[in-house]
Amino acid sequence: MVASLDGFIARKDGRVDFLETADEFPSGVVLDAAAMESVLGGIDCYVMGARTWETALRFESSGAGWAYGDKPVFVATHRDLPKANHPVEFWAGDLGQLLDEKVKPRFKDIWVVGGGALCGECLRLGLVDEVRYAMVPIVIGEGIRFFEEVGRDVPMHLVETTAYSTGMVELRYQVKRQTTMPSQRETHFVG
Amino acid sequence: MVASLDGFIARKDGRVDFLETADEFPSGVVLDAAAMESVLGGIDCYVMGARTWETALRFESSGAGWAYGDKPVFVATHRDLPKANHPVEFWAGDLGQLLDEKVKPRFKDIWVVGGGALCGECLRLGLVDEVRYAMVPIVIGEGIRFFEEVGRDVPMHLVETTAYSTGMVELRYQVKRQTTMPSQRETHFVG
Repeated sequence: MVASLDGFIARKDGRVDFLETADEFPSGVVLDAAAMESVLGGIDCYVMGARTWETALRFESSGAGWAYGDKPVFVATHRDLPKANHPVEFWAGDLGQLLDEKVKPRFKDIWVVGGGALCGECLRLGLVDEVRYAMVPIVIGEGIRFFEEVGRDVPMHLVETTAYSTGMVELRYQVKRQTTMPSQRETHFVG
Repeated sequence: MVASLDGFIARKDGRVDFLETADEFPSGVVLDAAAMESVLGGIDCYVMGARTWETALRFESSGAGWAYGDKPVFVATHRDLPKANHPVEFWAGDLGQLLDEKVKPRFKDIWVVGGGALCGECLRLGLVDEVRYAMVPIVIGEGIRFFEEVGRDVPMHLVETTAYSTGMVELRYQVKRQTTMPSQRETHFVG
């Protein structure tokens, strides 16, 4: 996912215009079609929330293309959403169940692509192995955060940093596995 | 300033324990005393808000040392704050006036070191030339943001990225100069 420098993936009204912020970082990696394909080609399926799904549909209907190719998309939502001419399954139940029982047995490289509430919940529930945090060079002041409602500390291990010629910086982290749950961990520290 | 991966410089109660998050990034730059000195040695003075001043005093009284050496410190505050055995001036007036009339004529390399409200206001008022945004590898879910109350878009130019052996990543940006003020710019777009 891509965020502003101050950590917002969208404005409060859902607009993501700021992601197009133009900058030049000459020593950065050029993100051309081949580089994009080498990243996106390895993805087996996408998981997202309702607003991210609606944003993708809006992008498509405005002529900007379909962001997820022919890859299956799972949408976690309690709402009745419009379908599309793309492979999609809606899921109104528990998020952990969706990932553990429905998605992980069938797919290997699963990308959770937003929004902030879904990403925060995935982190909180320990469902995520890796975080790719990309930042465009602009502060927007307020909006929807990359991670909403995480509710606990989640330490990471830095794996890779990449600066692109557009001024975007991508940080790749592994989520550190904690052997105990937060409540037990607290007991452990106290005892 | 240093923030969590989700952009918080302190927890809601002011604690900054998470900044000590341990990680290993073997190919990163080692931030030893000499490297620290080469960065900090060039600083002419510091500008901060009341809570940052109080945090520095608390650190010192807990035996962690004084963070700002013998450099002059300007504290923007409307409160009556404890002094210290360090050069300090308190300023209860306008922030732009503090920087433009009091600090900039006497000092060249001025570091605004927090908190989030002061940094946000400096950005909003166009008082900042450069932003150094360092991130430690942990998500903490909630806290005091790096930039609070910016109130407008502030585009940046990426200058440098540095990954440290501790897993901290520092991004250095120049604030892009806008030739018109926000209100005028809005008129410009509308007209």
